[in-house]
Amino acid sequence: MRDLQQKLGGEMVGEVNQPLTGVGTIRSATPTQITFLANSRYRSDLAASRAGAVILGAADRDLTPLPRLVVANPYVCFARVAQLFSPPPLYASGVHPSAIIHAGARVPESASVAEHVSIGRGAVIGEGARIGPGCILGDEVSVGAHTCLVARVTIYARCSIGARGIIHAGVVIGADGFGFAPDFSEGDGGWAKIPQVGRVVIGDDCEIGANTSIDRGAIDDTVLGNDVKIDNQVQIGHNCVIGDHTIICGCVGIAGSSTIGRRVMMGGGSGVVGHLEICDGAVVSAMTLVTKSITEPGMYTGSMPLMKHADWLRNVVHVRRLGALADALKRTAGSK
Amino acid sequence: MRDLQQKLGGEMVGEVNQPLTGVGTIRSATPTQITFLANSRYRSDLAASRAGAVILGAADRDLTPLPRLVVANPYVCFARVAQLFSPPPLYASGVHPSAIIHAGARVPESASVAEHVSIGRGAVIGEGARIGPGCILGDEVSVGAHTCLVARVTIYARCSIGARGIIHAGVVIGADGFGFAPDFSEGDGGWAKIPQVGRVVIGDDCEIGANTSIDRGAIDDTVLGNDVKIDNQVQIGHNCVIGDHTIICGCVGIAGSSTIGRRVMMGGGSGVVGHLEICDGAVVSAMTLVTKSITEPGMYTGSMPLMKHADWLRNVVHVRRLGALADALKRTAGSK
Amino acid sequence: MRDLQQKLGGEMVGEVNQPLTGVGTIRSATPTQITFLANSRYRSDLAASRAGAVILGAADRDLTPLPRLVVANPYVCFARVAQLFSPPPLYASGVHPSAIIHAGARVPESASVAEHVSIGRGAVIGEGARIGPGCILGDEVSVGAHTCLVARVTIYARCSIGARGIIHAGVVIGADGFGFAPDFSEGDGGWAKIPQVGRVVIGDDCEIGANTSIDRGAIDDTVLGNDVKIDNQVQIGHNCVIGDHTIICGCVGIAGSSTIGRRVMMGGGSGVVGHLEICDGAVVSAMTLVTKSITEPGMYTGSMPLMKHADWLRNVVHVRRLGALADALKRTAGSK
Repeated sequence: MRDLQQKLGGEMVGEVNQPLTGVGTIRSATPTQITFLANSRYRSDLAASRAGAVILGAADRDLTPLPRLVVANPYVCFARVAQLFSPPPLYASGVHPSAIIHAGARVPESASVAEHVSIGRGAVIGEGARIGPGCILGDEVSVGAHTCLVARVTIYARCSIGARGIIHAGVVIGADGFGFAPDFSEGDGGWAKIPQVGRVVIGDDCEIGANTSIDRGAIDDTVLGNDVKIDNQVQIGHNCVIGDHTIICGCVGIAGSSTIGRRVMMGGGSGVVGHLEICDGAVVSAMTLVTKSITEPGMYTGSMPLMKHADWLRNVVHVRRLGALADALKRTAGSK
Repeated sequence: MRDLQQKLGGEMVGEVNQPLTGVGTIRSATPTQITFLANSRYRSDLAASRAGAVILGAADRDLTPLPRLVVANPYVCFARVAQLFSPPPLYASGVHPSAIIHAGARVPESASVAEHVSIGRGAVIGEGARIGPGCILGDEVSVGAHTCLVARVTIYARCSIGARGIIHAGVVIGADGFGFAPDFSEGDGGWAKIPQVGRVVIGDDCEIGANTSIDRGAIDDTVLGNDVKIDNQVQIGHNCVIGDHTIICGCVGIAGSSTIGRRVMMGGGSGVVGHLEICDGAVVSAMTLVTKSITEPGMYTGSMPLMKHADWLRNVVHVRRLGALADALKRTAGSK
Repeated sequence: MRDLQQKLGGEMVGEVNQPLTGVGTIRSATPTQITFLANSRYRSDLAASRAGAVILGAADRDLTPLPRLVVANPYVCFARVAQLFSPPPLYASGVHPSAIIHAGARVPESASVAEHVSIGRGAVIGEGARIGPGCILGDEVSVGAHTCLVARVTIYARCSIGARGIIHAGVVIGADGFGFAPDFSEGDGGWAKIPQVGRVVIGDDCEIGANTSIDRGAIDDTVLGNDVKIDNQVQIGHNCVIGDHTIICGCVGIAGSSTIGRRVMMGGGSGVVGHLEICDGAVVSAMTLVTKSITEPGMYTGSMPLMKHADWLRNVVHVRRLGALADALKRTAGSK
C-alpha cells in the first residue's frame, strides 16, 4: 500500500498484512484487495468489510480500523489504483495475415492490427493504436495514437478519431445522416437522398460504448470534443457538435444539428429534437425529451412518474383533459 | 396429426385429409398446415380458416368442424408443434479454415465454427455449440453446450454463456461498463476511467436479441439467470443481476447495479435507473421509467397518453403548472 | 451552373465566376460551392454568404445578388445537385479472395463483394450490387440490383431486399422475432420458443440506418414497402408491415404485428405497442408511445414537457393524484 500512497498521495493509516493484488467492493473485497468508500450510503458496510485496505475521505478517517489511505477524492483515487492493478491489455504489434490493408494506408510498426480487419485506401493509423478483430475502416480514415478499436468497429471513409480513445464493439461511426427531400410533387415521387458528404471528427480521450452510432455530417462535420464519454446504444445524428467532457448515457438519441455544450450530462434514454442548443453544465434526466434549447446550467426533467397500473389508469385519463380541468377551476374560483 | 397427438398429448377430434407439413396462422394456413386458437379475439376467424387442423382449448372444442387437437395450453402446444416442423438448423461440425483459433482455446469436434471467426486464447467452446460467421470471442470466454451464436456476436474476455442459448447477430457481451470518476479538481482535469474487471455470466437457455449490449461488471459480475429472454436493441449496464425466466422487450435500457427478479416482464422501451431492485413477478409497461425499487408484484406504468397534437398542446401546458393548479383548488375549496 | 440548370430546370439568374466544385451550407459555402435556401429561417444568412451560387424559390428570387437558380422546390433541387457532385462510390466489380461464397450462390460479374464477406447457399445477388466488407448473408438471401450493403450487415436466411437500397453498417435483418409461450404449468417450466419461420421482405429504394434490427416474421413475413427510410438504432418486431415512403427516425421501437401505413412519419424515440394500425399520413412525435390504432392522418403526441428539475418535482407529484384532484374540483364546483 505504501507504493500506492507514494504514487497517488494521501495519508496512510495502518499497514497491510498481505500484499494487495486487486480491488474489490466493500462487501466483496478479500484481505488481498483494496476497496473504497466514496458514498456515505455504504458507511454501514464498512464494519463488516474483509478488505485488506480502504481508500476513504478525511471525514470517514476513523470509521474503520482497517489499513487505509485517506485522500481528498476517494473515488478518483480508487480509479487510479484500479488502473494500476488492471492496466489496459497489451497487444503484440504487427498486422495479422488475414487483415486486408488497402493501398496507401499507413500502419506504423507499433500498431496492432488483428484478424479479419479491413483498412481502406489512404487510412492513417496512429502509433501504438490497436485495431481489434473484425474492424472495418474506410478510405482515408484517421485513428489517433494509442486509440483502441476493440472489435467489430466500423468507421466510414474520411472520419477521424483522436488519441487515446476506446471504441467498443459494434460502434458505427460515419454512416450517412438521415436526410431526404420530399419529392412528391407528381403525387407519385419519393424521397430524394441528400448526399452526406461531411465527416465525423472525434477528439482525444473519448470512449464510445457498444453498438452506438454517430452519423457523418450532411455538408459540414459532426464533431465530438475531447474526453467525451458515450455509453452503449446511443444515436447521434448528423452535424451534432458535442463539447469536451460531456457524458451521454445509454440509449440516448440526439437528432441532427444539435449543439451540446461542455460537461453536459444526458441521462439514459433521454432525447434531443434537432437544431437545439444545450448549454455547458446542463444535466438532462433519464427518459426526458429536450424540445427547446437549454440556456442555463442545472438539471432538467420531463418524465412521467411510475405508478401502479390501476393508479395510472385512474389518473392519466385526466391528463387528456387537463385544459378543461384548469378552465373549470378558473370558473369555479371566479364565480365565488 | 396422430403422431403429434402421441408426442404432445391432448384429445384428437377428426382426422386430417392430407399430411401436415407446417404451421400457419388461422387466416393464412393452407390445408396442409396446422394452426392454433389461443386468443379468443381470433375465434371469429376460425369459421373461414382453410387450415388442415387446429390446436385449441376445451372451451373452443366445438367451434369448428376442422380436425383438431384439444389441449390444456394451445399456445404452448403450438410452440412444440412448430418446433417439430422447424427444428433448429443443423450445422456441420468442424472449424472453417478462415477461422482464427488462438493458442489454448478448446473447440470440441462436435462444435461448428464458421468463417471469419476469432476465438481467443484459452476460450472453451461446449459440445455441439455453433459459433456463426464473424463472431469474435475474447480470451478465456466460455460458451456452453449446444449454444448458438448466430453471426457477428462479440464476447469480451472472460465472459461466460451457459448451455442451449441463442445469441443473435450484433450482440455485444462484456464491453466495459460506463464508469468514470470526475477528476476536475484542477478545473481542467477529465474523467478517470474505472477499469471494468468483472465479467458477464449468463445462465442456460437464454436468448438474446440482435444488436443488444450487456456490459461486464466493474468489480463483481453482471449476472443473468437461466431462461432469460432479451429482445433486440436492449442495453444492460454493469453489475445488473437478472433472475430466471425474466423477459426484457426491445429497446429497454437498464442502468448499472439494478437487480431484476425472476419472471419479471419489462415492456418495450422501458428503463430502469441504477441501483434499484425490481421484485419477482413485476410487470413494467412500455416506455415506463422505473425510478424507485418495486417491492410488490403487479403491473406498473408511467407513460404519457397519446393525444392529437392540438389536444396535447392544450393540455400539456398545464402539466407545467399542476402544482399551482392544485394550490388554487385547495384555496377555492377551503375558502367556501 | 448552366449544366446544372440544363439538367434540373429552373431559371438561371446571373452567371458564376468560377466553376462550381461542390455544395455548402449558406454559412460555410465558398465561392466554388453552390448552396440553397429552402427554409425562411436562414434568409438573414443569405446577405453574408460567400457561396458561388444559390438555389432558391421564386419568392426569394431577389434576396441576393449572387448567381442563382430559381426553382419550384429548392430542397429537392439541392438534393439533385448534391447527388451530381457526390455520386455514390463506384466499387470495382468482382469477389475479394477472402470472401466465402457457399455452394449455389449466384453473384453476377457486375456485383462487388468485398473482403471477409460470407454469402450463404443459394443466395442471389443482383446486378451491380455491392456487398461491403464483413457482411454476412444467410442461405437463399436475395439482394436486388444496385443495392449497397455498406459493411458488416447481417441478413438471415431467406430474407429479401429490393433494388437500389442502402443498408448501413451493423444492420441485422431477419433475426428471430421475440415469441415465446409461457410453459410454467408445472410451476417449474420455462418459455417455449415459437420458431420464427417467416421472412423479412423489403421493397425497392429503401435505406436502413446503422445498427437497426428488423425481425423476421413468426409464420407470415415482416414486410417493408418501397422507398421506406429507416434511421439508426431502430427496432422493428416480427410481422410488422410498413407502407411505401414511410419515414422512421432514430431509436424507434415498433412491437410485433403492427401495420404502419404509407407516408407515415415516426419521430425519434417513439414507440408502437403491438398489433396496432397506423393509417397513411399519420405523424407521431418524438418519444411518443402509440397505444391504440391511429385511424385519421394528422400529428399525434404524448410526451412530457421539459421542466427545470425543481419545477418537475413540484408538479409531477400531482400527476399521481390527478384523479383525486379532478374529483375534488367536481365536488367544489358542485357544492357551490
